[in-house]
Amino acid sequence: MPFAASAGVADVLVALFTVLLAAKVGDELFKRIGQPALVGEILAGIVIGPSLLGLVEPDETLEVFAELGVVFLLFWVGLETRLSELRDVGGVAARVGALGVAVPFAGGYAAGQVLGESGATSVFLGAALVATSVGITSAVLLELGALASTAARTILGAAVLDDILAMVLLAVAVGVAQQGGVDLTSIGVVIVLAVGFVAFVALGGTRIVARWPDVFHAPKFSESPLLPAVILCLGLAAFAAQIGLAAIIGAFLAGMVVAESKDQHDFEEEVAPLYAFFPPFFFVYIGLEVDLGSFGDAGTILLLAGVTALAFATKFGAAWFAARSMGERDAVVVGLGMVPRGEVGIIVAGIGATAGVVDDDLFAVIVGMSILTTLAIPPLLRRALKTPGRNAPA
Amino acid sequence: MPFAASAGVADVLVALFTVLLAAKVGDELFKRIGQPALVGEILAGIVIGPSLLGLVEPDETLEVFAELGVVFLLFWVGLETRLSELRDVGGVAARVGALGVAVPFAGGYAAGQVLGESGATSVFLGAALVATSVGITSAVLLELGALASTAARTILGAAVLDDILAMVLLAVAVGVAQQGGVDLTSIGVVIVLAVGFVAFVALGGTRIVARWPDVFHAPKFSESPLLPAVILCLGLAAFAAQIGLAAIIGAFLAGMVVAESKDQHDFEEEVAPLYAFFPPFFFVYIGLEVDLGSFGDAGTILLLAGVTALAFATKFGAAWFAARSMGERDAVVVGLGMVPRGEVGIIVAGIGATAGVVDDDLFAVIVGMSILTTLAIPPLLRRALKTPGRNAPA
Repeated sequence: MPFAASAGVADVLVALFTVLLAAKVGDELFKRIGQPALVGEILAGIVIGPSLLGLVEPDETLEVFAELGVVFLLFWVGLETRLSELRDVGGVAARVGALGVAVPFAGGYAAGQVLGESGATSVFLGAALVATSVGITSAVLLELGALASTAARTILGAAVLDDILAMVLLAVAVGVAQQGGVDLTSIGVVIVLAVGFVAFVALGGTRIVARWPDVFHAPKFSESPLLPAVILCLGLAAFAAQIGLAAIIGAFLAGMVVAESKDQHDFEEEVAPLYAFFPPFFFVYIGLEVDLGSFGDAGTILLLAGVTALAFATKFGAAWFAARSMGERDAVVVGLGMVPRGEVGIIVAGIGATAGVVDDDLFAVIVGMSILTTLAIPPLLRRALKTPGRNAPA
Repeated sequence: MPFAASAGVADVLVALFTVLLAAKVGDELFKRIGQPALVGEILAGIVIGPSLLGLVEPDETLEVFAELGVVFLLFWVGLETRLSELRDVGGVAARVGALGVAVPFAGGYAAGQVLGESGATSVFLGAALVATSVGITSAVLLELGALASTAARTILGAAVLDDILAMVLLAVAVGVAQQGGVDLTSIGVVIVLAVGFVAFVALGGTRIVARWPDVFHAPKFSESPLLPAVILCLGLAAFAAQIGLAAIIGAFLAGMVVAESKDQHDFEEEVAPLYAFFPPFFFVYIGLEVDLGSFGDAGTILLLAGVTALAFATKFGAAWFAARSMGERDAVVVGLGMVPRGEVGIIVAGIGATAGVVDDDLFAVIVGMSILTTLAIPPLLRRALKTPGRNAPA
């Protein structure tokens, strides 16, 4: 109809309204029964999505809002993170990241071989089990006010390494699926770019801002330093995505850089509304992607149970083992914190399906595993964090 | 590449970054030379758009961000507006709205007839000259801190009526173009729905919130009342768009309703970051839609000059005449404030093109007129507001 910019946009407004309202109803219900709000938001997505009510379909516009949701989530997490704190946990975080990639990949690959899948499919199953969705864990840690704990820092440091390694593994998997082999040169380029970007921003960016602490006040276009910081966040997120890293790695680094400026506190207050507005789209979108209809037969359900157990055991075991020098309680927190696969598992499954080596059943199973690990962790992590430990949250 | 949700989303991040950065560079340059920032943002859109650099194409995702931009802009304006203040200027605003629709429509229709266009095309040209883009004027008034003046209230009240009448006229125009006639019943339904919605929200909504002033604090899902208010804003914007009104009318009414609650001031502080983030997409998008290539020949340029002069003269003259009881200075401010056609003229042109009664040349001319009235008004309005008058801004 007439003045609604266009019919498409009028419908998008309805979808955005429906998603935000559903997210907050789910949030409200879960808060009232004392459960993690984000689980309520994901379940709200399942309810309004194609599986049940069919009110909203996942489409590219909603995916953009979901992506900005996790971008602003990690920007916020970065704002509360100092490079020096990450450095303090560097050794353990590196072990957690490396072992937390190697063991699930080996487990997934072995499981594929045992199930009689092709080499390419087995590589994809391994890759799908690798990547942690640090967005989910961050949201739980934020909700519980535990982001400043040593365990949380370790998870964040490990997640950056995890993402770089997972990206390399996925590049290998795509190479195997498409050409039956791996182009070492192009993978070398990918590694150099990714590591160079992270190191340059984390080391160079924080140093520049530390020396020029009112850089975000310099422009006249904004009365507050918020917008220059948001532009930096979007720019680094976009760049990270273009070189094959997760956009959220760029956003997290941007947050860390901005945190070095003189008014970290004002930033947090100002980013809060963006942080309130966008992330619900991320959680609901995960729910929208669930297709309950795929789990009609016992065989698929059994496979889902097995893959989910494998995903949980390999990631938790590896991360817990690597972090055990931190004490039992913190090692459990780190182990649990690395388990959610969230949107990342779903993306890997989608790439495998496009490459023709992940069939419909396996696709549904990987998506289901991603959701289940995401839904299971918040309550477990909440319980683990309430256990007193050597390094209780500040 | 791998973990950037999808290749499409990675590219959208780049587009969002480019638009926001360009907007703020334009803003910065125009602030430094003492000109209205939003003109700088629109020109930035022309520069990065298909006409010049071709860095960004207007697409549906950007259109959604643009729409949210003007939605949050008018929500903000609504937050600063009280129903009682609109009531005080009601009589003048009604005259400005009614005359400001009738005269431009008559002028456009007559011009179409003089130029030898068909009846349907003439009706469309009239309709395209009608609708004021109150988003542009609001942004100028906000930038100059003049939103609380009587003239500003009059413009806002007139704009609501303007939008309802313009919607009806456009429905008539589409009817004439498609069936060669007008279905009075369906147009009656449209009018009843629109008037009923505006009256119900403006009168009922403000009364409910005035009686239950902490309604936005009731939900537990949010520590601040921002998100419940934003959900209301999106809901009313979506509803307005679905019944054929501008989404911004819903957003403006939502702002007025929320302003009746007990913490109007906190709201303004909290909405500020959303207001900083989204509206630049609206201004840049207007620039992105410009196609400088359409104005290659002298005939089109002449037509553009004529139509723009007509659009300016009829709207300014009618609104100024209707508002002259307010004193010369305020009547000039009201007259100028009603002139920008912005996105609304572009939308009407698009609907006419789809209906097959607006050809490529006329489409380009209407879009050009919309942009020119939009670019011309901010400097003129700024000068007029600086003239002392009977009702100087508070």
